[in-house]
Amino acid sequence: MSVTVPSGFRASGVVANLKSTGKPDLALVQNLGPRHSAAAVFTGNRAKANPIIWSERVIADGVVSAIILNSGGANCFTGSFGFQTTHQTAEAVADALGVSAGDVLVCSTGLIGVGDQEFRDKIINNVPAAVEALSEDDDSAQLAILTTDSVAKTATYAGDGWSIGAMAKGAGMLAPGLATMLVVITTDADLSSVELNHALREATRLSFDRLDSDGCMSTNDQVTLMASGASEVIPVLADFIEALKSVCSDLARQLQGDAEGSSHDIDIEVIHAKDEHDAEVVGRSVARNNLFKAAIYGNDPNWGRVLAAIGTTDATFDPYAVDVSMNGVRVCHAGEPDQPREMVDLTPRHVSVLIDLKSGDATATIRTNDLTKEYVHENSAYSS
Amino acid sequence: MSVTVPSGFRASGVVANLKSTGKPDLALVQNLGPRHSAAAVFTGNRAKANPIIWSERVIADGVVSAIILNSGGANCFTGSFGFQTTHQTAEAVADALGVSAGDVLVCSTGLIGVGDQEFRDKIINNVPAAVEALSEDDDSAQLAILTTDSVAKTATYAGDGWSIGAMAKGAGMLAPGLATMLVVITTDADLSSVELNHALREATRLSFDRLDSDGCMSTNDQVTLMASGASEVIPVLADFIEALKSVCSDLARQLQGDAEGSSHDIDIEVIHAKDEHDAEVVGRSVARNNLFKAAIYGNDPNWGRVLAAIGTTDATFDPYAVDVSMNGVRVCHAGEPDQPREMVDLTPRHVSVLIDLKSGDATATIRTNDLTKEYVHENSAYSS
Repeated sequence: MSVTVPSGFRASGVVANLKSTGKPDLALVQNLGPRHSAAAVFTGNRAKANPIIWSERVIADGVVSAIILNSGGANCFTGSFGFQTTHQTAEAVADALGVSAGDVLVCSTGLIGVGDQEFRDKIINNVPAAVEALSEDDDSAQLAILTTDSVAKTATYAGDGWSIGAMAKGAGMLAPGLATMLVVITTDADLSSVELNHALREATRLSFDRLDSDGCMSTNDQVTLMASGASEVIPVLADFIEALKSVCSDLARQLQGDAEGSSHDIDIEVIHAKDEHDAEVVGRSVARNNLFKAAIYGNDPNWGRVLAAIGTTDATFDPYAVDVSMNGVRVCHAGEPDQPREMVDLTPRHVSVLIDLKSGDATATIRTNDLTKEYVHENSAYSS
Repeated sequence: MSVTVPSGFRASGVVANLKSTGKPDLALVQNLGPRHSAAAVFTGNRAKANPIIWSERVIADGVVSAIILNSGGANCFTGSFGFQTTHQTAEAVADALGVSAGDVLVCSTGLIGVGDQEFRDKIINNVPAAVEALSEDDDSAQLAILTTDSVAKTATYAGDGWSIGAMAKGAGMLAPGLATMLVVITTDADLSSVELNHALREATRLSFDRLDSDGCMSTNDQVTLMASGASEVIPVLADFIEALKSVCSDLARQLQGDAEGSSHDIDIEVIHAKDEHDAEVVGRSVARNNLFKAAIYGNDPNWGRVLAAIGTTDATFDPYAVDVSMNGVRVCHAGEPDQPREMVDLTPRHVSVLIDLKSGDATATIRTNDLTKEYVHENSAYSS
């Protein structure tokens, strides 16, 4: 169970044969209320998929009754036909559930350019089955949204009389995103869409937004938060935000751990930056440096590549004051070699890189992965 | 012959055992005059190697008598000791040639963090041998600057009574640079340092600056142009600039063709951009997209990844108006699938990607490489 842990939600996952594997590929989550408040954040990519364009309109009034998600095709760059497919999908769900199509979010993931008549037919024709399969005790929706993921990603949180449930797919970040990242979070807390929106932006800013697996921003990323109010409990907003942060961080770690072809999870912590923006920019420059990422794949604590990456930013720092530690060993001190690189053990999956900019008091951690032969293989042999 | 093709230059390459291979690793180029005018462009990385910091001072007055270059160690992040090494190297060359140390450029390439007493001794002790070996008919300097390069890169141009000679190492771009890229260009044309500076910036802007093999900016990149005036010919400056452009473009293509582990040279031509900046930004965003680069490695004409990359820029364009062609086949028209991707043959090494933004009249071409398992292997197994 994931999104049906909070009361007031039903979910399902069915086989629409959009994927060639015969596995579930169409998921539906319904909010039974009494509230139907919602918030969402979307990809920052200007090339938005049709479901994103649709969902941005739906979320505008903060009311959502259901969300339908498919894998096996991104319905992006499929023209006006593709947008009509998204619209018709929402209409089909609305008809079957007796709600307004304007309250139905749509998400798609898979190959860009896929969204023809066959794709449309498979989705529309299987909406009734998805509605039929809706259950308050569902384990299928979280499977139906997967593409290259090797495992389902779920997280739950038990509050004082209220709860949060969540499912995610993808192996990357919100903006930019590795592959299409879709997240659905539900809660039975009694919160307005304004409160949800505030909480969701706070939580995603420090979780999904800090995940940068391969620097590639998706056209279809969407994180949705829906509240049913079924618990009839109004939590302290600060408590809810903390809970949401922990759920989002948990999912972000799961996405990092399942990133395509990766052999290391790399947490890049930047300390003593002038401000948080600087800390994030520095961490991201290292996270996107292919030479550094390949070195970690080879268990090589190549701190020179870390400094070279920092040098490409406009952050406030003196290149000859910076310290760099890897897995607890300070390999560079004040811009010069420090402890021998042989002391660094990079064989565990988790790698910690600590960068001390000595320029202020701000901190940020960017989570990324190494660049592996398997990543190249998966993304050259598999059209995604 | 490369840099000694123009009259007024001597060069040499000797073995200083900085590289473990026993191959030449110390190069020297002397300008015999009568002019000693010069210009140089340096890495944009804020983490500059000691030779860069030194050479920026030397070039300030536009007078250069000699340039000494070593492979086998970058002398970057080696502290004040490393800077003293660079200074002492220039002094040793100056003493041996009877010139001012303030007119001697220094370049280094190799692993960051390498620049200890042993490194210093090997260079200083071998300066006399490099001076002794100086020849007006040299083929060794172009070999002594190589690191992971598989072949030497040289180019020459015969003008009307004057000529240009050049050698390069590296497999990337000027800013950012893949691995350390060093270029030395000589001419016997009678030109001032102001003219050389203008010509060099014009030529590098459209050649090395448009090469983006892996998006990683080096700490040691330097392109140097020296004029001896020995031909006693003052060329029309526009003619000289055109010649220099052709030499730099030729070298840029050789660097692209020898990029670490690459299996495709990809030329990304952006047309009908609002302005040249937009065209360059769009081309570079595609050139740096790992998913696109991995797809080309797999001979997959994945145009969706091209559009997703363009969508991350702030260039002026309508995502749903863009055309994308690969090797002459228009696979995307107005943001929708066009010709079948099966029509695109990506088996040749050269790949041409044409992006029509339909937003203006400007054009730019960015040259890059694919992302291969061999690139990952080389940069994980080899500390560079």
